[in-house]
Amino acid sequence: MNSLLGFTFILLALGSCRGLQDNDVDKEPDLVFQPSKYGSLWPLPQNVQISDVSLKLSSSSFSITDAKESGAGASCGLLQLAYRRYYEYIFGGAKKQKVNRSARAGPTDLLELQVWITSPDSECDGYPSVSSDESCLETFSQLVFEDEYGTKTINSTVISDFPRFAHRGILLDTSRHFLPVKAILTNLEIMAMNKFNVFHWHIVDDPSFPYLSRTFPNLSQKGAYHPYTHVYTPADVKMVIEFARLRGIRVVSEFDTPGHTQSWGKGQTDLLTPCYSGSKPSGTFGPVNPILNSTYDFMTQFFKEISEVFPDAYIHLGGDEVSFECWQSNPDIQKFMEQQGFGKDYRKLESFYIQKLLDIVAATNKGYIIWQEVFDNGVKLKPDTVVHVWIGSGSNSEMSKVTAAGFTTILSAPWYLDYISIGQDWLNYYKVEPLNFNGTEEQKKLVIGGEACMWGEYVDATNLIPRLWPRASAVAERLWSAKEVTDTGDAFSRLSLHRCRLVERGIPAEPLTPSFCLHEYKGV
Amino acid sequence: MNSLLGFTFILLALGSCRGLQDNDVDKEPDLVFQPSKYGSLWPLPQNVQISDVSLKLSSSSFSITDAKESGAGASCGLLQLAYRRYYEYIFGGAKKQKVNRSARAGPTDLLELQVWITSPDSECDGYPSVSSDESCLETFSQLVFEDEYGTKTINSTVISDFPRFAHRGILLDTSRHFLPVKAILTNLEIMAMNKFNVFHWHIVDDPSFPYLSRTFPNLSQKGAYHPYTHVYTPADVKMVIEFARLRGIRVVSEFDTPGHTQSWGKGQTDLLTPCYSGSKPSGTFGPVNPILNSTYDFMTQFFKEISEVFPDAYIHLGGDEVSFECWQSNPDIQKFMEQQGFGKDYRKLESFYIQKLLDIVAATNKGYIIWQEVFDNGVKLKPDTVVHVWIGSGSNSEMSKVTAAGFTTILSAPWYLDYISIGQDWLNYYKVEPLNFNGTEEQKKLVIGGEACMWGEYVDATNLIPRLWPRASAVAERLWSAKEVTDTGDAFSRLSLHRCRLVERGIPAEPLTPSFCLHEYKGV
Repeated sequence: MNSLLGFTFILLALGSCRGLQDNDVDKEPDLVFQPSKYGSLWPLPQNVQISDVSLKLSSSSFSITDAKESGAGASCGLLQLAYRRYYEYIFGGAKKQKVNRSARAGPTDLLELQVWITSPDSECDGYPSVSSDESCLETFSQLVFEDEYGTKTINSTVISDFPRFAHRGILLDTSRHFLPVKAILTNLEIMAMNKFNVFHWHIVDDPSFPYLSRTFPNLSQKGAYHPYTHVYTPADVKMVIEFARLRGIRVVSEFDTPGHTQSWGKGQTDLLTPCYSGSKPSGTFGPVNPILNSTYDFMTQFFKEISEVFPDAYIHLGGDEVSFECWQSNPDIQKFMEQQGFGKDYRKLESFYIQKLLDIVAATNKGYIIWQEVFDNGVKLKPDTVVHVWIGSGSNSEMSKVTAAGFTTILSAPWYLDYISIGQDWLNYYKVEPLNFNGTEEQKKLVIGGEACMWGEYVDATNLIPRLWPRASAVAERLWSAKEVTDTGDAFSRLSLHRCRLVERGIPAEPLTPSFCLHEYKGV
Repeated sequence: MNSLLGFTFILLALGSCRGLQDNDVDKEPDLVFQPSKYGSLWPLPQNVQISDVSLKLSSSSFSITDAKESGAGASCGLLQLAYRRYYEYIFGGAKKQKVNRSARAGPTDLLELQVWITSPDSECDGYPSVSSDESCLETFSQLVFEDEYGTKTINSTVISDFPRFAHRGILLDTSRHFLPVKAILTNLEIMAMNKFNVFHWHIVDDPSFPYLSRTFPNLSQKGAYHPYTHVYTPADVKMVIEFARLRGIRVVSEFDTPGHTQSWGKGQTDLLTPCYSGSKPSGTFGPVNPILNSTYDFMTQFFKEISEVFPDAYIHLGGDEVSFECWQSNPDIQKFMEQQGFGKDYRKLESFYIQKLLDIVAATNKGYIIWQEVFDNGVKLKPDTVVHVWIGSGSNSEMSKVTAAGFTTILSAPWYLDYISIGQDWLNYYKVEPLNFNGTEEQKKLVIGGEACMWGEYVDATNLIPRLWPRASAVAERLWSAKEVTDTGDAFSRLSLHRCRLVERGIPAEPLTPSFCLHEYKGV
């Protein structure tokens, strides 16, 4: 949605102190709630200029409309749905009033929000891309607050806004635990509230293969936790993609090979490498078998389907944590290594596989993202490959190397949110500066963003949302707001209110610190 | 409910492997799901003898009835409500069938569960006490499983059961975050499913005072986060107590003084000690002021009310973490110290306060529990005081000292569940042996149990349940089952199934490890 530039005149609410106690007597005494001059805005826009003029919004007379000059009108379903959604966010918490269109509006009433899409390409029916501009409706809704009489109020102001990084993602892992579609949709809603724009769907992995492939239905029939109750059907996947699209979110699917593929082997004979114990097969299997033509035939068909099912321009191909032990044990692999002149360097075999895979995927006209090991192991990559940096130690020097080699990159190393501890760990995520590595300006420009990762070992629908939110919100602001936005005290105050807003919208986002929200979570 | 001894013949289900994947490829390779011969029983009963005879249960013909010889019959509301609850647990997940009482029962049908209350005192209308026996209905419900056709099935067996420790508690903190009553009730339900029998309600503390006192309404009017939306009214408290009673759970309230009382000072003038900065009051306040008669008049009236509102025989009086700085700064306190001949030993002043408080509470005919510092600081305690050990380091030597001094004790030190980390930390809670301290048999007998504590700094209704369960279940088994029940592999398998049972009953209990449940959590 290209509404950004035409959407400069909107209004700012000075968030009141409600929602937080003023003496946090227990811990982190340096983080005391002090109303921010930016209210509850999260992530902080690039420019905010506040006035003292306050206007009232009535649920019966306020409307969101298309500006006359707008490049998208009533026929733009995406916009119309967004108007309804944000009307509901703004007024949903208030007692419903009878709509009385004939009631007189006072001089301080705000009657209309005009949305002016300035781009000729409104993207109403298309899918979001890495270069898409962003919706400002969320910002507008964050400016509305209830005054002490419960009146929806907004302060007149000027904002201009744009994200610092184009790629702002959340990774969910639906293999270690299956996440019902409803949990994924809820998470997409919260992502939109935090201006995340990439859902990295780590859909399959060792433990289970919940993706129902039309071409190879046995993969989920045999490899899912349960072939009926723990799979994503084509209809499910479509629903996720459409739900995301309507919120400006790209769905980047990951099908990780050649490692992390135990579940693939259950439904696809000969796909995985048989491991040997001495001179005999041990009965266990290793990574994808890179020496068989059948492997590449399979991958060609499989990724043709994936490229059609997932409209995004990119596919994540994984490539992390490939163990060489099983390959080393297998005499056929050994023989192949000799024939190819790879010596004992199994990284060359990995490279052999990945290069063939990249060719296969490139033929579908998709771009691809790979985990950093593929780069580290010296696999020859096409220049347009996106390298995803995830290994915690040494990630700055990794960013230097990857960008020095000219590759576009995404950072996740400091944002593994599956690691938890008592206290305000959001601060650690917040304090990260993604470009804090040695490199030229050109290198820095290759960092297109980052992703917060919620790996699924200990997470399913029972605990996903409160464990992820609002911790991931810290990453959201780091990736959206200006580099200079680093005041943790101000962030604490805004994030506390933002978290209460999520709770008010029905989201079980966990608390930051001893505190309360005016409207506590009800859905126990 | 004294059903224990008359309830020896019940039936055991061999839990099937459903609900867990058999290859947890990722972590903790030593903990692999292997069906336990004890099925999904949690906590493990003291004696279980299994037969291969399996019986079927039909929702239309099965009933739970009072045995002829039972000391409690149809007039026992507590039992009748429990029958309904467990009927629902057993058949609730299944598709509802039309009740057809005329349908013929087959020879392998189990038609009736007879409950025989052998004690003359059925406790139908009374409150549970530290010596109460335990319900076996939960055990029975844990024995029922679905066979591969969905038929509710149970294997005939003999169980005799009793808890190892009488006091098995969960502490919730409703001051740092307010917990809506609904969240407390949900937690009580889960406690019953885990045979916890004490809800330690840490109801007030520094950040807020949500208890609405009839005698001193200003305490919550001024000290709660919000005087209407963030308080427990007398009706709320009654509801919690009754809901707990029906599940055999005691409600032990804690009103922690003289420290942890910042919120008390807002609604009760002169209760707290004014701190001084040099020769002038600084405007801040410290612990309860121990040198004023008005303090003790207040406490007398306040604890009279508490002793009437909370029927349990015990009140927790806190006494932890008293800082002496403010007392030391106050010239009136200094003068009082001199007059009393306390020198510079502020522990003597603390002791002075506590002894007066204990006298006040003793006059209400209640017993009391105090945190370990009160003992550590040499406060003279009555012999029937229960000492609650919580400080992590040196807790074994503390247990030695407390019991050597002849005091009854409760252990919480290893079970601070507000501390979190990635991975299976339930194992750490499980491996604790509460009597693993130097002491005589007599000393060991003084350990009446323990409590898992979920302090509220980072916990409210959004994340309480998945963060607490099933981690607290590990504590439940440690406190209930025999000392010898220490096989972590067997525990892992049973707990995995127990956790899936909680999920099936609608509880968002988080997962232990990569796995799935036949019925995943729906209430996202």
